[in-house]
Amino acid sequence: MAECYDIVIVGAGPVGLMMSACLLRLGPYKIKHIDQRSGPTETGRASGIQGRTLDVLQNLDLKRAIMSYNPGRIYEVAFWDSSNDGPGIRRTGTAKSYPDYIDTRHPFSTIIHQGMIEKVFLDDLRERGAEVERTWTIAGFRKDPGREYSNHPLVVDLVSADGTRRLTVRTKYLFGADGARSRVRDLLGVPMLSKDPTIHVWSVIDGVVKSDFPDIQIKCTVHSPKGSAMIIPHGNNRVRIYAQIYPKDGQEPLAFATVPKIQQVANEILAPYKVEWEKVEWYSAYRIGQGLAAKYSLDERVFIGGDACHTHSPKAGQGMNYGFLDAHNLAWKLHLVEAGFLRRSLLKTYEGERKLAAAKLIEFDATYANLFSSHQPISGNSSAPSSEFVQVFKQNSLLTSGYGVEYPANSLTWASTISSTDTTTLRPGRSLPTATVTRVIDAHPVHLEQEIPFNGSYRIYIFAGNPVTTSQAIFDLADHLQAKNSIFHRYQRKDIDTSYEGRHNPHSPFFTFSIVFHAPRSTIEIQERLPYYFACYRYHVYADDRESSRVAEIAESNAHRKMGFDADTGGIVVVRPDGYVGCILKLTDGRASASALNNYFGAFVPPTEHNAVAPRL
Amino acid sequence: MAECYDIVIVGAGPVGLMMSACLLRLGPYKIKHIDQRSGPTETGRASGIQGRTLDVLQNLDLKRAIMSYNPGRIYEVAFWDSSNDGPGIRRTGTAKSYPDYIDTRHPFSTIIHQGMIEKVFLDDLRERGAEVERTWTIAGFRKDPGREYSNHPLVVDLVSADGTRRLTVRTKYLFGADGARSRVRDLLGVPMLSKDPTIHVWSVIDGVVKSDFPDIQIKCTVHSPKGSAMIIPHGNNRVRIYAQIYPKDGQEPLAFATVPKIQQVANEILAPYKVEWEKVEWYSAYRIGQGLAAKYSLDERVFIGGDACHTHSPKAGQGMNYGFLDAHNLAWKLHLVEAGFLRRSLLKTYEGERKLAAAKLIEFDATYANLFSSHQPISGNSSAPSSEFVQVFKQNSLLTSGYGVEYPANSLTWASTISSTDTTTLRPGRSLPTATVTRVIDAHPVHLEQEIPFNGSYRIYIFAGNPVTTSQAIFDLADHLQAKNSIFHRYQRKDIDTSYEGRHNPHSPFFTFSIVFHAPRSTIEIQERLPYYFACYRYHVYADDRESSRVAEIAESNAHRKMGFDADTGGIVVVRPDGYVGCILKLTDGRASASALNNYFGAFVPPTEHNAVAPRL
Repeated sequence: MAECYDIVIVGAGPVGLMMSACLLRLGPYKIKHIDQRSGPTETGRASGIQGRTLDVLQNLDLKRAIMSYNPGRIYEVAFWDSSNDGPGIRRTGTAKSYPDYIDTRHPFSTIIHQGMIEKVFLDDLRERGAEVERTWTIAGFRKDPGREYSNHPLVVDLVSADGTRRLTVRTKYLFGADGARSRVRDLLGVPMLSKDPTIHVWSVIDGVVKSDFPDIQIKCTVHSPKGSAMIIPHGNNRVRIYAQIYPKDGQEPLAFATVPKIQQVANEILAPYKVEWEKVEWYSAYRIGQGLAAKYSLDERVFIGGDACHTHSPKAGQGMNYGFLDAHNLAWKLHLVEAGFLRRSLLKTYEGERKLAAAKLIEFDATYANLFSSHQPISGNSSAPSSEFVQVFKQNSLLTSGYGVEYPANSLTWASTISSTDTTTLRPGRSLPTATVTRVIDAHPVHLEQEIPFNGSYRIYIFAGNPVTTSQAIFDLADHLQAKNSIFHRYQRKDIDTSYEGRHNPHSPFFTFSIVFHAPRSTIEIQERLPYYFACYRYHVYADDRESSRVAEIAESNAHRKMGFDADTGGIVVVRPDGYVGCILKLTDGRASASALNNYFGAFVPPTEHNAVAPRL
Repeated sequence: MAECYDIVIVGAGPVGLMMSACLLRLGPYKIKHIDQRSGPTETGRASGIQGRTLDVLQNLDLKRAIMSYNPGRIYEVAFWDSSNDGPGIRRTGTAKSYPDYIDTRHPFSTIIHQGMIEKVFLDDLRERGAEVERTWTIAGFRKDPGREYSNHPLVVDLVSADGTRRLTVRTKYLFGADGARSRVRDLLGVPMLSKDPTIHVWSVIDGVVKSDFPDIQIKCTVHSPKGSAMIIPHGNNRVRIYAQIYPKDGQEPLAFATVPKIQQVANEILAPYKVEWEKVEWYSAYRIGQGLAAKYSLDERVFIGGDACHTHSPKAGQGMNYGFLDAHNLAWKLHLVEAGFLRRSLLKTYEGERKLAAAKLIEFDATYANLFSSHQPISGNSSAPSSEFVQVFKQNSLLTSGYGVEYPANSLTWASTISSTDTTTLRPGRSLPTATVTRVIDAHPVHLEQEIPFNGSYRIYIFAGNPVTTSQAIFDLADHLQAKNSIFHRYQRKDIDTSYEGRHNPHSPFFTFSIVFHAPRSTIEIQERLPYYFACYRYHVYADDRESSRVAEIAESNAHRKMGFDADTGGIVVVRPDGYVGCILKLTDGRASASALNNYFGAFVPPTEHNAVAPRL
């Protein structure tokens, strides 16, 4: 009898580890997580965590562990070019990594090499009793929906890296996070579609340097007649330098790019400045190829993510970020299907959402990588960063920060029913804007968008405006949510859990209500203002009252205004478990709002009741 | 031959542990740290960390460990009183713990019981190879300045708690952090002077509660005809309640205050609300007595700190805070005397500074504790918090936050030579105001006041205004600091250390220069703008350019303006290793500034050169 698993995860790089980390937070899932390498990455490789990704990691409670490594943080980018009026390069301008119009708590890229990232995840797995089994790889899989295994229709054959051991297991799902040369993708027979046939060859080196280059601690893009380079500060006095190289036709990049060769090329590009290496910790060289997998899944049972789906240049620092968000996107959907809150067919939205995002990234990358590798000396004494390259860099900040990703309308993401204005950043399919509000019970200023951990719950934010104006609507809403035919009634547990441990999910593991009044905190009496149904969420009742705060988050204050809601009549936002806005609703009539909420959830919950209720966090 | 130590520390509560933690950061000191208890505190006892204290702990890199316990944070206080027009208590008002006029990054009290605090310190000690020896106490000490022991003039006799083991050691210093019944103080023959003869008796209980009291997660003061109470949220769903009790004359408080009795009294005071205890983790009861030690030291060799010096009510949450700052104040002075940068006679400033601070606290405490214990029912339907109690609470926020402490003028703290205006918060004897600036080399926004760790260095901030205006003064200043007769030359190491590891102290372990230009970061070229002497501090060159930042620290922006300096001509602030402003100087003439700096340091460095140079951080 083959052992049965909920999921087999192939590959324990950042993407596979993210999948395990997510699932371990969602339920007691039985995970077979394998990797063909004998140990984790020690250093080098992927290194950039963008703002939106850091939000997601924070929501998984992994940010603190990452920050404890004192990673590099990139707030600015400096552009260096050769000039026609003198030898060597000079700075032509600087730009913020995250321009002011990007709404984020993390206006910087976090730079930490893949060894540390994998360690953060492996430590987390270990604390939760999970582990990665090495050195195993996948030999094949097949669907076998035999009656006795109807819950575990996949048969997966595993083989040890040296071929001496074989194992066959049963599983519900298979996730291939096994990189650009994905074996799972090959087994699926999914082709990679190449977007840009141009091939550039780059080398990269990590270590400790001494240098008279003034921007050695800032991210720099450097263009000179000798080639292009990029400087990435890694924190703790570590620096990464990418340098373009030109091996002969057919020559392997790594055969060309020895450490002294990379150092020499970098110094030629950076002349008249010099970089001396006190310590080299890692180096590599590779051709940049672009590709996008034709499909991301098979029959809602087998999925691929990360580099297995999309490859592109590392110049925009996006690869690991898109891979993380692939796994994050898929994990909660798998969970809700298993828990009985999501129809299986909705797993199609994984490819629908993530492939579109990857396609946009690859489009940008083709433009950016080509501009990067082409040399345009600046002329005269112009110091304005006016080149096409700088323009492309700046125009794509929203994309590269991660906040520009917008999922298309589908059953999980409704087109807005409220006409959005230019001033609101709240949009279905995008991440919830940041908002600082005051928690009523303890007067803490909190970041609303991080108040509910990644636990598989839908997050329903009732922006309740003026408590007097909306009182009737709120009480009516509570009544109608509890009606017999309401989905909220259907998925409610028998005993309401009002304990501290149950604070996020008193009624159900599938949803959390948050109520944000536009009123001073000290005037909000939870017991009087709210029907018992909502008072159960006492840890999620907030005052949108921080306008005049000394904390001075003026740009972020007034959550109602930021969401585009009237400060008197309010509105409702439904946010998916991954932090993306599902739909935006009115709050003028409680019955109508309850009905709209039921319509939204009704579009994707299974038609009959499933009694499976996953454990709460 | 008796073993020789640099210091013997008696008592391993928070104050003694703070002394060890400080000294371990200042040098490789040989510490004999003893405690008469068989193990550390497990729970309960002291719990409040005020804003200024958290700054200090952050500067010791201990804040992260404290915050990892998810402590309670108190942002607001609610006042509850009985009223004449109905039974039971009602809320009469709320107030911020830290009103807006208090300049702090931490506008809250951090609440964490003493067990966790001791664990944070003990973990830190262990990482640094130190430990507390239990169960030992001090039996006696004497001065014996015999020739062969001239460096270790104190002979200390130790005895195990059970009296079976005895040990005699030699030491340079003795620090008694052995609490209100200090044995070291008794051995010194120092009397406690009582300030307020009123005796109140209080009980305290920690645990997990269920309650319909709406402010159970907020700090509350409660006055009713049944007595007074205080509620302190401890984080993680834990609550502490203090309740006034009335044992019979001569009855021990703990004989009266059983757990059920305390719970009953608290419920009587809080009626009509109810508190149910799911779990009791600690309780106690005690009389409040006030006292201030007549002396803090003997011959600049033996010192006492914390409760050994000052006792008062726990109502204002100050005891541990003043004790921490006693140890912090003394540690760097001991270090600089040993390292040859401070005349021994300056150790008198420990008592001069800390006893004055304690006296002011005790004065406030007498007023506050009496008001707390007296009952004044509010009349009519007034809901304004207008009682004398609330007034006293609010007026003393600066004192209770810790930011109101101002050390008197002495050799280490000069009266200001620049006329201070009402708008500037920069004052000699007070902690350096917060300022957010941009570090030039990496464009990071940083908290200027936390940029140099507690390492024994003086921190000299050159607010360099407009780089063009001050250029001559800066270059002249560098020249004159390096002159043969300059103290900065005298204490400069032979080889300038420009490595990353040496970034705080390229010239000397005794001082760090920071240069803050009032100019946009991208316009500041360190190599061009600064003489080599100051360019060695490349990690401490900043741009005061964050006025229009999205980070929106508008209240904190413009460091020059905040310090009261002209944005064009700037000025100089010398900050002691403990973060308190030593003196404020002009920058109009580099030679004059160098001379003023030499005068300041000349007033306390030993007259002849000491070659002892302590290790750098």
